Parts: sequence; C-alpha cells; structure tokens
Amino acid sequence: MSDPTVDPTLRSFLEIPDGSPFPIQNLPYGVFRRTATEPPRVGVAIGDEVLDCAALEARRLFDGPNLAGKRIFDRPSLNPLMALGRDAWREARARISRLLSRDEPLLRDDATLRGAALIPRAEVELLLPVEIGDYTDFYSSREHATNVGTMFRGPDNALMPNWLHVPVAYHGRSSSVVLSGVDVRRPMGQTKRDDEPGPRFGPSRRLDIELEMGFFVGPGNRLGEPIPVGEAEKAIFGMVLVNDWSARDIQKWEYVPLGPFLAKNFATSISPWVVTLDALEPFRCAGPEQDPEPLPYLRSEGERTFDIELEVSLQTEKMAKPQRIIRSNFRHLYWNMAQQLAHHSITGCNMRPGDLLASGTISGPSKESRGSLLELSWAGKEPIELPGGETRTFLENGDRITMTGWCRKGGRAIGFGEVTTRILPELG
Amino acid sequence: MSDPTVDPTLRSFLEIPDGSPFPIQNLPYGVFRRTATEPPRVGVAIGDEVLDCAALEARRLFDGPNLAGKRIFDRPSLNPLMALGRDAWREARARISRLLSRDEPLLRDDATLRGAALIPRAEVELLLPVEIGDYTDFYSSREHATNVGTMFRGPDNALMPNWLHVPVAYHGRSSSVVLSGVDVRRPMGQTKRDDEPGPRFGPSRRLDIELEMGFFVGPGNRLGEPIPVGEAEKAIFGMVLVNDWSARDIQKWEYVPLGPFLAKNFATSISPWVVTLDALEPFRCAGPEQDPEPLPYLRSEGERTFDIELEVSLQTEKMAKPQRIIRSNFRHLYWNMAQQLAHHSITGCNMRPGDLLASGTISGPSKESRGSLLELSWAGKEPIELPGGETRTFLENGDRITMTGWCRKGGRAIGFGEVTTRILPELG
Repeated sequence: MSDPTVDPTLRSFLEIPDGSPFPIQNLPYGVFRRTATEPPRVGVAIGDEVLDCAALEARRLFDGPNLAGKRIFDRPSLNPLMALGRDAWREARARISRLLSRDEPLLRDDATLRGAALIPRAEVELLLPVEIGDYTDFYSSREHATNVGTMFRGPDNALMPNWLHVPVAYHGRSSSVVLSGVDVRRPMGQTKRDDEPGPRFGPSRRLDIELEMGFFVGPGNRLGEPIPVGEAEKAIFGMVLVNDWSARDIQKWEYVPLGPFLAKNFATSISPWVVTLDALEPFRCAGPEQDPEPLPYLRSEGERTFDIELEVSLQTEKMAKPQRIIRSNFRHLYWNMAQQLAHHSITGCNMRPGDLLASGTISGPSKESRGSLLELSWAGKEPIELPGGETRTFLENGDRITMTGWCRKGGRAIGFGEVTTRILPELG
Repeated sequence: MSDPTVDPTLRSFLEIPDGSPFPIQNLPYGVFRRTATEPPRVGVAIGDEVLDCAALEARRLFDGPNLAGKRIFDRPSLNPLMALGRDAWREARARISRLLSRDEPLLRDDATLRGAALIPRAEVELLLPVEIGDYTDFYSSREHATNVGTMFRGPDNALMPNWLHVPVAYHGRSSSVVLSGVDVRRPMGQTKRDDEPGPRFGPSRRLDIELEMGFFVGPGNRLGEPIPVGEAEKAIFGMVLVNDWSARDIQKWEYVPLGPFLAKNFATSISPWVVTLDALEPFRCAGPEQDPEPLPYLRSEGERTFDIELEVSLQTEKMAKPQRIIRSNFRHLYWNMAQQLAHHSITGCNMRPGDLLASGTISGPSKESRGSLLELSWAGKEPIELPGGETRTFLENGDRITMTGWCRKGGRAIGFGEVTTRILPELG
C-alpha cells in the first residue's frame, strides 16, 4: 500500500482506546461545535477526541497547493471541502495524518495548539455534516429486491425484468435527512387494509428500518455532461451509515404507480462521521459477478466495492441492552457506487457537492443478513424473538435501532461509528 | 375586493404596454442582474421593466414592521423573502404597489431613484429565482391519470384504486430545475423495446413535455409537525409555470417498482417570474367536486384553486412561427395546492422555504387540453399535424416548446410570462 496514511503501523501521539472506530488510519470528517453559540466547523474524529480543522486552518497549517489561503474548514458543512476534489482531499488527509502521527512534533509538542485543536468528543455537539442538495436512494441489493419481490409476487417473478440491467433508484427527500441521535416520530398517514373497502387515517403500524450506506458526491458534473463510470470513484468523497425509515403500510397503499413518497419522507438517519474513500482503500474488494453483462456505460472492472461489516441492534424499552438482529456486508450489493453514479448522471443529470446517494437496503444471502424488518419477519408472518420474551414484527414506540459499520483486515480495523435512533409515539 | 393592490382601476405611472402580463396588479418576483459581474438581486416585473427591490431596500423604502432594517432583496434568491411569511409578503407588496402607482410621487417624481430602480427588462439577465431544496411532483389531474391509465391498462382499470383518496406524488430532482431559455439536451439512457430481448442504450426517442404549474413553499414546518390543510395556503408564496420534461421510453423500462427516475431527472424548466398568491386572489375559483369525500386531513372547503388559462406552443426548425398545440386550465386539477401541501407534510415531513411542489401534468376534459405529447398523440398512435405538413408524436431536435399562463376576469388580466425551451441533440 503506497499511501502512508493507511499504513497499519502508523501510530498517533494520542492514546487511541482499544476498539475505537477512529484510529489514525481512519480520519473521518464531521461538523461540530462545543456550545450552541459557537459557529459550527469541520473536525476529524481521532480516538475519543475531535481534531478542530478550523483551528489548524486559522494557523495556516493547511499550506499545500490545493488548500493554502482557502477557508474550507471554518464552515458549517463539508460541502466546500467536497467541492474541491480528490487532490485537495488527499492533501488535507496527508496533512492531518502527519500532524497526528507520533513522529511529528508540531502538534504533539505544542501544548497551546493541542489545547485549541483537540477537544474530547464527549464535549462536542455533532451536527449534520453536509448540506444535502438532492438525496437519491438506490435498490441495489439483489437479495433485498428478491426477498421483497418474493413476498409480493411469489418466487417465480421475484426480480423485475429491468433489475439486472438497471441500477434501479428513486429520488428521496433531502430536507428530512437527520443525524444519528435525533428521535424519529412515528408518522401518520393513509393506509388501506385488504379487508376494508376504503382507506383509513392513523399512525403507521408497520414502521420499518432499512440498513443502508450512502455516499456523498464531490465535485459533481455540469448539466448535460454525464460522469463516465471509469471516472466515477474520483467524484466520491466518502460514506456514512444510513437508516432509511419506511412506513410499509403507507407505502403499500400509495406507491402505485409513481413509487414510495410519504412512506419514506418523514426521516432518513445518517451517522455523523464521513469516512473517506481514501481511508477505505485497504478494504477494497470485488462485488458479486454481474450476469448478464451490463451495458457499456455501466461496465466497471476490478475491485470496485468495499468489505464493510454491518450490524443492526434493537433495544426495546424493556430490554437492559441491545440485541443484534442483523449482520450484513456492503460487499453484497450487486451494483457498485461507480455504477450508481454513472447511471444517475447518464441522462446529463447534474450532481452537486454534498448530494447523497444511498445504496438501498443491504441484504445478503443468509437470513441473518436481511436488512429490514419486512424481510426479517417475512412481512410480519415470522416475528423476531427478543431476550425477555418480547417479539417484534415492526417497530414499537420507544424502540431504539442502532446500526454500526466496521472494516477489518489483518490486524487493522476502522469503523463508521453508529447511527442510533429512538422511535417516538405519533403526535397525540 | 378589499386588497387595493389588486384593484383593477389601479394604474402605474409607468406606461404598461397593452397585453403585458405584468400590469401593476401582478408584481411577480424574480432574480436578475444587469451584467455577469453584478451581484444577483430581487426584482419585480412591471410592464417592460424590472423594479430593482434591492435599490429600494438600500434607500430604506421598505420601512414597515416586517421588513425595516432587514436585508431581504439584496440577495441572490427569493428564499429569504419566502421564509418571512405572509405578513411580510403583504407588506412588501403593498409598498411596491404604492411606489409604482400613478398617485404616489416618491418614485414617480425622483428621476435619480427611477434611474437606479427601474431597468428595461431587455437589459437584464434573469436567473433561477429560488434555491430549491426539494422538488416534488404531484399527479393531480384526474384526466391525465385517466388518459395514461387507459393507454397502459385499458379504460376499465384506468385510475388506480388509491388515486381518488391520495394526492399521489413522487420526489423529483432539484439540481436540474432550470430557467426558461436554457436549452435542454436530449437525454441518453436505457430503453427496451417490446420486440427485443434486452435493453439498448441510446438517445431517448420519446422525449415529451408535461404542462404543469408549481408553487413555492414559504415558511415551511418543523420535522414532525404537519401543516394542517386549513393553514396550508398561508404557507404558499407563489406560483410558476413548469415544464416537467419526460423521456417516456426510459420511463417505461425503469419505473417499476420505484417510479420515474432518469426519465425525469435531466431537466425541469420553470418560468422566471413568481406570481404571488396575493396577485392571484381575484382569480380564485372552485375545483372539481371531490367524490368520494377525502379523509378529514385533506378536506378543504370553498374556492381553493385558481382560474389560470394555460397554453403550449410548438415550433419546429422549419416553422416560421409557433403553433398552439395545447389549451388547458389549472382549475381542472382534482387536488388543490392546500391539499397537496397538507398531504406532503402529514407524516411530519419538513418543508423548507423555496421547496417546489409541482402539480403534475394538467390535462382537462377536451382533447385540446391534454397536457403532454404522450396523451396528445395517444402514445404515438395519432401524430400531431403541424402547419407546413410536418407531424410530431414526440419531440425532435431543434423543436421549441413554449408554455404561457394567463388569469383573465372582466377587464383585468395578469400573466405568468412564459417558459420556453429548445431541444438540443444528444451528446455525440
């Protein structure tokens, strides 16, 4: 591995707790503030601390050709950094990696600078890191599409005829993308039972999760000029965990013929730290074989995805601790991120810095890897058994869902942290 | 009518050309600049001129309780104005109406101020007036849904079972909303013919228009707190003409099961001047009877829509002048704007100032009122005949589409101007 920032032998002068998702090889970006009156700014998670990149910028420590003299980190979102492109991202990463490393005295030996630039993570408030222009949700797990298709149309017609040719997706709602920790209220809406003549209004009774990941677009493209599949990875800044909340009963009634709308627009939760593609590089791997071969504009050779272990836990109000209910992996996805981005822009659709493209529910081949309660409970027919004798088909009020993501290889490990959310009862 | 700004006898000291869509009763907002180096700012169209609201603001002429001391018009978008809410909108409108009226000397008799604040419209560049956070497209014309349903499923199953209960909609793409005058490039994409075994890649051969209107949200709502239907109109700032470009062949192959995606994301064109609901007040009317009665959260009494005459013309490269091909009316829509906004937010989905909600194709009961080429040519089976012997099913390169909107009542008339677009060939 030629990039020294991912060298597994690299050590920070900071003490990184065992099992931290944020060793010096990770360096994910977020947006934080210490008090509600302080301006939000860009930081990097390192162990149990946050490195204040704005403080480094103010001291002109980003002095490379792409960053010198620019105001990129003293900002309330990552969008300006995302817009700069990969050369600038790598310059920033190399600088931060160096400043945090054990062998570099500049920050290590300057108590004043350390006091200004390193803040315990427990003392900061994390904010939504990106101003998301457009949010798109793909449907790129073959196993998920097959599971859902089997439930609704039977095993013989499970996969739609377009699915193996088109990275199917729909436009989502960007205003309601919220951060981990923000409680989500059970939505109200129209539903219709099969045994009733008309629709009724009330709280959703089939509130579900979707285990997803999402990536943020970097520089983007001009309207009318697609991003070729071979150039697409360069345009991706980094990734987060995504819980794409879904009201299955609202969805079932509303979605024909234009797709899910209210069933998805009440909230989408993301993890606060954006892990860059540079940090993920050591965990690169091949995706599933694609047969039939995609059309040329979607052909992508080599290791174009990443080995990211994903887990989901559920804790009801009665449970003393969370119980893992899902174990999946990002590598199961049939369509990779480069293909998603190339497809999204093939019509000329312009992508902007900060656009969020999510994967769709990440299910795998095993039962344990089903990425939604809809699949886990097989549309409510097979309740999930929990410690203490409780069961769940869909979510109850007070339930807490936590998703985590880890990359592990040899002795090294980096993590995404978590996206954790509690369900509030509907408005009375 | 108690609002003096819509009084039909009101006259401006400016000469308003006969047939201008922008008499003093209209006062639509836009964003403009005179040169590419000048900062964009908010203006109001009046006759053949633009009133520079930022110039008035700089002279502290907006001195009412909601606007005094604020920087609202010296801005590159209408979003700050939209965020202020209806009291501020009415204060601004009353002030502008007064300043432009024949009986008010302040602007009329001050040559210096007139020179600074009134600019010939031919000398300004109009820009996208709003920073659109999220764009949503409804499907609220019963006639359009019935026409499309009849073509695809036959007359007996034309309308989906949910349609008369749910204001069906889907999330669109906000990045590719462009202004009138911006050429639109024919998109490339995957399509599949019924007589071929697999998909092919190439330019869309069924490029279509959709005659729509859209409204911009004002103050919006917090996540989790729906906008009641009775409060919804107060939250609407104003309206524009919308051409929601559609690639029917791409749509047909991709849209199952999550709805249209690439078929719609390459461009949506809007007219540059936002006509406020206050200006539309005299043209208020009742919509179609709603049977079955909507669920309580969608019930809206009285005259909740507007009589807006809509026309679409087509001009091919060979034609000397445009030919009208569609005549419809906004009042045909089954679901009104208040119902759309209440429905959109009923789950708690948060709406932000500047969000765009479009109506869906506005078709009416007559053949001439079909709002898309798909319907006009009945899926390509009945070509549209044009002067000079040309015919069209879908659009050819070089074709120009122009949509206009007018409100007329008694002797008074206000207009939306136009949204006009030329089709460029696909990238070679």
